[in-house]
Amino acid sequence: MKATIKQAFLKAGMPDEKAEVCAQIHTESSCDGVYSHGLNRVARFIDYIHRGWVDVNAEPVLVNKLSSFEIYNGNLGPGILNARFAMDRACETAIESAFGLVALNNTTHWMRGGSYGWQAADKGLIAICWTNTESCMPAWGAKSIGVGNNPFVMAVPRKEGHLVLDMAMSQYSYGKLQVTRLKNERLPFPGGFDKEGKLTDVPGPIEDTMRILPTGYWKGSGFAILLDVISALLSSGLSTAGIDKAGLGSCGSCNQVFIAIDPIKINSQDFIDNVLNETISQIKFSDRVDEDQEIFYPGEQSLKTRKENLEHGIPVDDGVWAKVKELAGV
Amino acid sequence: MKATIKQAFLKAGMPDEKAEVCAQIHTESSCDGVYSHGLNRVARFIDYIHRGWVDVNAEPVLVNKLSSFEIYNGNLGPGILNARFAMDRACETAIESAFGLVALNNTTHWMRGGSYGWQAADKGLIAICWTNTESCMPAWGAKSIGVGNNPFVMAVPRKEGHLVLDMAMSQYSYGKLQVTRLKNERLPFPGGFDKEGKLTDVPGPIEDTMRILPTGYWKGSGFAILLDVISALLSSGLSTAGIDKAGLGSCGSCNQVFIAIDPIKINSQDFIDNVLNETISQIKFSDRVDEDQEIFYPGEQSLKTRKENLEHGIPVDDGVWAKVKELAGV
Repeated sequence: MKATIKQAFLKAGMPDEKAEVCAQIHTESSCDGVYSHGLNRVARFIDYIHRGWVDVNAEPVLVNKLSSFEIYNGNLGPGILNARFAMDRACETAIESAFGLVALNNTTHWMRGGSYGWQAADKGLIAICWTNTESCMPAWGAKSIGVGNNPFVMAVPRKEGHLVLDMAMSQYSYGKLQVTRLKNERLPFPGGFDKEGKLTDVPGPIEDTMRILPTGYWKGSGFAILLDVISALLSSGLSTAGIDKAGLGSCGSCNQVFIAIDPIKINSQDFIDNVLNETISQIKFSDRVDEDQEIFYPGEQSLKTRKENLEHGIPVDDGVWAKVKELAGV
Repeated sequence: MKATIKQAFLKAGMPDEKAEVCAQIHTESSCDGVYSHGLNRVARFIDYIHRGWVDVNAEPVLVNKLSSFEIYNGNLGPGILNARFAMDRACETAIESAFGLVALNNTTHWMRGGSYGWQAADKGLIAICWTNTESCMPAWGAKSIGVGNNPFVMAVPRKEGHLVLDMAMSQYSYGKLQVTRLKNERLPFPGGFDKEGKLTDVPGPIEDTMRILPTGYWKGSGFAILLDVISALLSSGLSTAGIDKAGLGSCGSCNQVFIAIDPIKINSQDFIDNVLNETISQIKFSDRVDEDQEIFYPGEQSLKTRKENLEHGIPVDDGVWAKVKELAGV
């Protein structure tokens, strides 16, 4: 899968080294079960290159440095490369002085946010990061879209499997609505409003109104607004309202914040292990709603899917796979 | 109200200067409409003093300093004073070098989390802070409580009214369930599970099971777990599982994280004003669900309630007010 995606990126004009990393991340996302931002997103990313919305040759440039806090201009380069670079810089600073903060403006879609949580955790570091996006959700009390779904990520390293939270501010993504509709199924819980303004778990009517539900109603709406404004002010970049005006596709000229913290600078490894293990035990050994249904800590299901897919192969949609092969010319 | 609360705190053995600040914050919380953690919480706080769960004379002590990152031991002092001190330190560091981080361990209930967001925003600073708590909510997939509701706060300063998000990880607080039950009303949306395991908007059956709903289902559960673990690792303090074992009441020996950032170190005031104003315009001028129902930005309703209460007086529950007067000996 990685070789095919890389070939497609090379054909779209990406330099070899950049195509290698981007193909790796798209493949890892599919391998972890985040198909929407893995293989399934390759064709759209290439379309953005052709439209001039992503500059395959651009590199992030330092625009401001204040102690452990750096700001970069992403120059509309590939979102994955910019985000990986920014998280790496935050990690380097954290390894030096416990804490690092990098804000990135004028970048493009980072694909799966969780990638950057896993990236820091693999280095033994705690991470907090988020991105803003174009408008795709109504604010609480509104019918028309006006806020982004602004994915937010937190990660904590752990030998037996990192804790990684990767959540957007909408209860469900448009991808989840589409997949559920195509299977003729209902959502597990109401995911938005139909044209009569009623909450519904049927995906089609929500896709029609674009009134997707903020997670936790007013809470996800408010959280999305603050994530947006803070990322714009930390990076000197565009807010969601600004991204809407820029018109460079999904997340074109968006901005991101990357925080890394080195827990071993503060605690002994025994202390860290104890905090993580007693927390995970308390969760996993809670009384279960359904006796047969294990309780998972955040990140556990990604790791489980990764192991399964590495053993049995990554499932693909035949149409999507054919399209990527066509783009790769194979 | 402030004078009466202060008198009650003095009678409970608090030194004058500390009683003054705590009374101010409890009063401000009620004035902003957060009655549950304002006047209504005074008697319980005094009970905690008498039980020895809060040490009215304790002061926070620096235990570690790594560049812009400081860790304090709260020594089980009054949570309001410890939290205000920690946010002040984070702000001082941010004013010096753009960014400040303070982690606080072994502290006690900070009452209304939003107070510390307003505190930083009043100084012109962006704030992010959170606390962990004892277990009060089941993890997603669990029937028994095992995670805290871990309130999370983000604030951005703005001349015309700060943006302040103050959200716990449960959809509703136990206070909201109680108030709704006493009025014989239903919750606006389902708030937890009854003993048959069905989601319900009737508060009584949720109070019975303690199966309050994490905000956004699995999302609020995962977010609560990461907030807990990160605060424990940043402060070298107790996780929720540790707080449960300590048995010092609600939030006894909990820990907190305070981040402050100075936006003017990075941006011109014009840029900041533009980001905030275009964002707030986009939200407020969205098409409304209900023509007569204004769309609010986070923090706007607190400010509105504050103005109303300053003009017309702060509403109180007669029983609560009588109890505080009794504690004050007036």
